[in-house]
Formats: sequence, structure tokens, C-alpha cells
Amino acid sequence: MGIQDAIEEVSSLLGQRLSRSKSDLVTHGASETYFANMPPDAVAYPETAEEVAALVRICAARDCPVVGWGTGTSLEGQAQAMRGGICVDFSRMNRVVDVAQADMTVRVQPGVTREALNEDLRATGLFFPVDPGANASLGGMASTRASGTTAVRYGTMRDNVLGLEVVTAGGAVIRTGTGARKSASGYDLTGLFVGSEGTLGLITELTLRLHGIPEAVSAAVCAFEEVGPAVDLVIATVQMGLPVARIELMDALCVSAVNAYAGAGLRETPHLLLEFHGSEAGVAEQAASFGELATEFGGADFRWATREEDRRALWFMRHNAFHAVKAQYPGKRSLVTDICVPISRLAEAIRACERELAAARIPGPVVGHVGDGNFHAALMFDPENEAEMARAKAVSERLVELALDLGGTATGEHGIGVGKLGYMAREHGGGWEMMGAIKHALDPGNIMNPGKLVPER
Amino acid sequence: MGIQDAIEEVSSLLGQRLSRSKSDLVTHGASETYFANMPPDAVAYPETAEEVAALVRICAARDCPVVGWGTGTSLEGQAQAMRGGICVDFSRMNRVVDVAQADMTVRVQPGVTREALNEDLRATGLFFPVDPGANASLGGMASTRASGTTAVRYGTMRDNVLGLEVVTAGGAVIRTGTGARKSASGYDLTGLFVGSEGTLGLITELTLRLHGIPEAVSAAVCAFEEVGPAVDLVIATVQMGLPVARIELMDALCVSAVNAYAGAGLRETPHLLLEFHGSEAGVAEQAASFGELATEFGGADFRWATREEDRRALWFMRHNAFHAVKAQYPGKRSLVTDICVPISRLAEAIRACERELAAARIPGPVVGHVGDGNFHAALMFDPENEAEMARAKAVSERLVELALDLGGTATGEHGIGVGKLGYMAREHGGGWEMMGAIKHALDPGNIMNPGKLVPER
Repeated sequence: MGIQDAIEEVSSLLGQRLSRSKSDLVTHGASETYFANMPPDAVAYPETAEEVAALVRICAARDCPVVGWGTGTSLEGQAQAMRGGICVDFSRMNRVVDVAQADMTVRVQPGVTREALNEDLRATGLFFPVDPGANASLGGMASTRASGTTAVRYGTMRDNVLGLEVVTAGGAVIRTGTGARKSASGYDLTGLFVGSEGTLGLITELTLRLHGIPEAVSAAVCAFEEVGPAVDLVIATVQMGLPVARIELMDALCVSAVNAYAGAGLRETPHLLLEFHGSEAGVAEQAASFGELATEFGGADFRWATREEDRRALWFMRHNAFHAVKAQYPGKRSLVTDICVPISRLAEAIRACERELAAARIPGPVVGHVGDGNFHAALMFDPENEAEMARAKAVSERLVELALDLGGTATGEHGIGVGKLGYMAREHGGGWEMMGAIKHALDPGNIMNPGKLVPER
Repeated sequence: MGIQDAIEEVSSLLGQRLSRSKSDLVTHGASETYFANMPPDAVAYPETAEEVAALVRICAARDCPVVGWGTGTSLEGQAQAMRGGICVDFSRMNRVVDVAQADMTVRVQPGVTREALNEDLRATGLFFPVDPGANASLGGMASTRASGTTAVRYGTMRDNVLGLEVVTAGGAVIRTGTGARKSASGYDLTGLFVGSEGTLGLITELTLRLHGIPEAVSAAVCAFEEVGPAVDLVIATVQMGLPVARIELMDALCVSAVNAYAGAGLRETPHLLLEFHGSEAGVAEQAASFGELATEFGGADFRWATREEDRRALWFMRHNAFHAVKAQYPGKRSLVTDICVPISRLAEAIRACERELAAARIPGPVVGHVGDGNFHAALMFDPENEAEMARAKAVSERLVELALDLGGTATGEHGIGVGKLGYMAREHGGGWEMMGAIKHALDPGNIMNPGKLVPER
């Protein structure tokens, strides 16, 4: 009855801001994917780091699991309460604390979403570039080491979180990192918490790196007969040092979905979508250099868009690719793969993926953050058809095996959560044991998001 | 007698490659700074990761300290053997294992120096950008989280190490990271080892990120009446998104040393030195934009250098600033400070530094990686004069206090070692205890570089 005791005590602490309503529990037990609902026993809505710390101290004393919650948009069930306990929903900690314009940094509470932050920053000429698609919370994005279409230029959350305020598993409030751009002082605790999926503590504040809104932006789309030359072009582009801000691949199946959904009117072959950020002259030069390269690699149907409305139309297509795919397969559910490989092996990985999908008779349109070697196939299956679902899972597993064989990772950006835990031992070997030792040292009672990320002791 | 027993066993393992010669011990007990010699009891020269692992297993069983050694160029005594034991010198593990040109990555053994790597890469059109000045080993640079003049554009070792092979304190060989550019899989063990100064294990291989050699490079130098406007110009430059590859400050005292040493013929006021990397047209555009900005901020005596020999002359000056300063003060020793602050506080920090130096009657020419908010004052003192040395140390301490008060760090890039251990508790608070818990979990016998970086248990 440790959990019930903890709930009683947290209820005294938070009053109405501890909810046990059925609908709240179900909402906070859901995931964006096909996993069964795993509800917590209660949902807390703290407003300060001190409240979070007091809550964690109660839970530590009562052996009650604590699971953080941002917007619930993670794709691997990271915030599902595998062992019940208290879900800490950060939606009331959604304040932009301080914009340091000269330092190009910002302090935010974890419940601020990336769109809200960029809205808030609009007048400053600065922006926060990490863009996973969903309007996720920044605390959740840090916890899952999110990235997205702009990582090729601006990096992932690993690169854009300068410091954190964290409530430890013991209920202490600590700060990691500093306000300086770099430091050689001690273990990189900031980097340790980024990507730890709530298993080491709860993030209660973030210091983020900002970037200047570019003076000029241009976007383009370009068709290819096959995936291979498109990937070769990406490699050549990166090697030339052309600072692409986004460079995305859609395969023929994805283009066909996008045509049906958004009337894109593209030839139904693989396409690259890209964007350049810079000065007017810089963007024009980069566009020209890329155009020459693209022709060499057989790119066709080249279209440039520098006007904002044209660029919006182009990226609307890409950002809605997942919806477009879902609309193509009514009644189906999706299993979205996320392997990431050395870019030299990317074309090979995508071709292997297409072969596996054909053999399994599972449609799986592909979009790829090709500059990073990361791509997603949205495997569409009938949730009523167990055999089909099993085939989809088998394809996903074989893709992970392939990624690891090619020197890559099971997950470029979606993280581990419930869905990828089975691959940790294979991917990390002795490193997984080391992660377990760190977890045990920092959370000896195993109350922080138990059942996730590390080996069980 | 655990150490002696360990030495006997390691001697059987390595034969002639375990040295106990007096000169070897003294060489490996030295530091680049004023610390007293702290020699190990023996120096090992392993040739493979397996040998390192076997050595560590012996030392773990015998409670014998193990201290890694690259080139001995660290500035805070990181590789000094505070408790004796076996120094592991990686000079025989100096092979470039594999260049993956399409992936723009390279696998190297830890004893490869950065200059040797760039020599090796010359034909590929790629280079490794992190440049701390000294021709340090890449294993040592990773262990100390080194950076230098190019960090403003290319990042520090934190940003350029993709993966590691590590021998743990238990003598197991593990791999961290993958060959992919990004991953959301588990704790960032790579990031944990980078900057851990040999206290968690020994790095036996690194996978590094490479960059394309820019098509064009231009360099410039520009004079200012005072430090303030120079720093304001740097802030404006970074905010505009001008991709400076280097942007360095020399104060008037430093310029005067450089004039005397290299006949630079510069006006003896603060100067900025900078470099742009890009396409021919891009570099020209950036130069023009910077020139306009610089004029607004009162920059004068502007000189551009695009010819390689002129650029070399310019950067020769900067790279030899430390030698130039030493030559100005014959017989003196130096204590080099390394604070790093939010860039908005940098001018204030440099002015406070100059005031402290004047009050203490200690000369301390300043060079700064101003794009990062990091600067070094080389405090010159007479090693025979204890009062003067005490005054220099007091200035250094007050600068660290100042950096922490301004939201910065005691060390931007030189690390902790022997010299900065006393500031860890103040800088990290509860985070330092957390570092201790991680250390204890991964090295329960405290054999890896004991006495460094973490609180003693």
C-alpha cells in the first residue's frame, strides 16, 4: 500500500492539483502508438520545483513510482506508467523564465512547448530550432533527446540544452551546467539527464541555446528515379560544407500519399526536400551550388521556393506526411521505425527496408532525415489482424538488427520507452550494464519511471 | 604492497614495455604548470585495448591506481599520479584505424595527436577542427573536454566525439555511441566519459566527427580602444548569425608582448583576430558584413588577409601569444586562468580581472576565446617569491568566484585536474555529490586516477 499512502500525502501537499479521475488516469496512461494503456494511480499538477521535490521525497519514502509527463507526444510510450504510481504532469510549469538576448539563451520551465517558446521569442530575432514535428514540451524533448528535421544544421536536444534544474530521486533540487557556452568542469550531468527518459530524476527547468532567425530562407524540392542517387547527393552536399538547414527524403509511396492528401502534384518517385538558412546572397549561392550538384546526381523537376507562402506549402507537405499516410490507410494503425545508420549505409538500409516490407506485404512509406542517416518507415497494419501486426513487428525488428549490423542505432530520435527496451542489451553490450549501475547509484529505490531504459536488478 | 604486486604482474604482461626508470617516472609526474612533480611508480606502454584491459584487471585486484597519459600537455595536472600507481602512456597506441570519408568520421587510437590526424587526413578534403593550441593526443583531449580557438564554430570535444571504446575500472572493454550521427538510445555514456579526466575508465579508441576543409578562408585583425566595444561587436556578430570560425581577443598587454616577440607592429590596445571559413563568395560576404559592423563598434586598423602566408603570420602571432608573454617575463612562472562566463558578462569579467591584477601588482596578459565567453589571463610570478605567488593564486581564486557569481564556470577548457578541485563543491553543489555517486558506482575500488575530480568517500 505504499502507493496509496504516497497518494494520500501528495494529496495533502497539492490538494485539487492531485487528480484521481478516471479520465485523467486513462489520458496519462496512453501513448501515441499501439501500446496498451498503462495508467498511473494519480496525476499531479505541481507548480514549482519545490512542490516536485516534496512530492518525490514522499514517493521515495513510500516506494511509489514517479513518471514525468509533458504533452504525451512521445512515440515509444516513455511516459506510460508501467508500474502505476504518480504521474507528474508539467503543464502548469509552463513559464518562459528569462530570455538572455545577448547570450542567446533562455531559461524555461519544462512544460513550455516548443511552439509557445518560439511565439514568445518572436520579437527577439532569436528562435529555438529543434523541431520534432509534434508541439512537444521542452522538458519532454530533453528527456527523450528529441531532434527532427533541423538537426542536420542545429543539432539535437543534446546540443541545445546548456543546463538543467533537476529534482533527484532523493528529492533534492540540483543544477547542472552553467550559463556559459562551454565548461570543462566535471562530469557532463546535463548530457546524462538529456535522453534519460525520466529514470534519473525530473527536469524542473532548462537553459536552452537559441539561434538567430536567419535573414533569408529558401526551400526546394527535387525528384529522383531512385533512393540511391538522392542519398549520394546528400553525402556530397554535406561534404562540400553546404550548410543545409533541412534535407529530407520522401520515398515514392510517401510522395503518393502526400499527393493524395495535399494535392502536391509531384511525380511519384523519391524526392528530396531541403531548406537553406543564411544571408540573401549566401542562400542564393548555396541554392546555386546545390542545384549544380543535384543535376550531376540526376535530380529532376527542381523547384525553388523563396517566398514564405511557397515554402510553407512545401513544408506543410512534409510535416503532414504522417497524416497523409494515415489517411491513405483508413482503419490501420502504424508502427513507426526510427533506425539511424552511418550515412554511407543509408541507401542500403532503405532498400533493405523496402524489400522487407514487400516480402511481409506491409505498406510502409518512408520519410528520412537523410543528413543524419535517420529514416522512418510507417508500417501500416490492421490492428484486428494479429498475423499482420506480427509481420509488421517482425519487419521492425529486422530493421533494428540491420541498423546495428551497419554500425547504427535502433533509434535516432524516438527513444526507447516501452517499444525499444528489448534492443538495449544488443546495442550497448556492457554499456547497458553500466547504465544500470548509474541508475542504481542515482535512484537506489528505483522509483523514477521504473521498468524503463535500464536492466532490472 | 598492492602497488608493487601489481607492477610485478604488469611487468610479466608487458615485459620491456613497463618502465621503472627514474627519468620516465619524473617525466610522467610532471605538469605544464607550477605543480610539484607527482610521479607514478611505473609507466606502462600498452599496444592494444586487450593489454590495457588486462593491466586494469591486475590493478583492480591489487588496489593499484591507474592514471592515463597522452602527451602531458594538459594545464591542470590531470595526468599527475597523486597516489602513485601505474601511468598508462598511450604513445604506442597511435594508429588512425579507419577514415570513413562518406560518413565524415574517423576511428583513432587515443595516442594519435591532433596534428598527426590532420596530416593523415590531408588527402581526404576533411579535417578535425578542435584546436587547443598544444599538439595534444586525442584521447587526452576527449578526457579533458578540450576546445580552443575554433570552438565557436565547430564545438568542443563534447560535440566532436561520436563514440568511444573504453576499458572500465573492472577491466572490461565496452563501446559507447555508434557510427550514426545521432541516437536517442539510453544514457549518453560517450558524453559521460568526455571530460571525466580518466576517473571512470581509460579510452582505448575514439570515433570522431570530421568536417570538410573549407573552400576559402579569410582572416582579419582589428584594433579597439577598449575591451568593452570589442566584446559588444562579438555579441552582435554571433547574433547576426555570421559564422565566424575563430574570434579571439588579445588585450593591450598581450599585444605588446606579441609585438616584442613577433614584430607584429600592432597598436598597443585590445585587438580582435578572426577567421571565416566558407565558399569564396560566402567568405567575402561575411568579411564585408563584419567590416561594416566593426566600424559601427569603433574598430580601427582593420586588416584582411586571404593569402595563406598572411593568415599564417596572423595566427602565428595568436598561437605564440603564450610564448611571447613568457619571453616578456624571463625567470617568471605562469598561472593561467580559464574562467568562462555568459558572453553578456565577458567585458565586465575582463575589466574585473584587470583591476585585480593591478591591485595585486601581477602582470597578466589576456587572450580570450570571446565567442565562447572564455578567456585566459597568464599571471606571471616569480617562483622564488612566495608572497608574489600567493598574490597570483589569490587573484586566480577571486576570478573563479567572480565567474561563478556571473553564472559561469571555473574552467572553460583546461579542466579540473589538481588545480581546480577546490572549486567543484561551490560550482556544482549537489551535482558534485552526484558525480561522486557515479564515480563510486563505476569505480568502486577508486583505482582510476584517484584523488581527482570527485569528492573523496
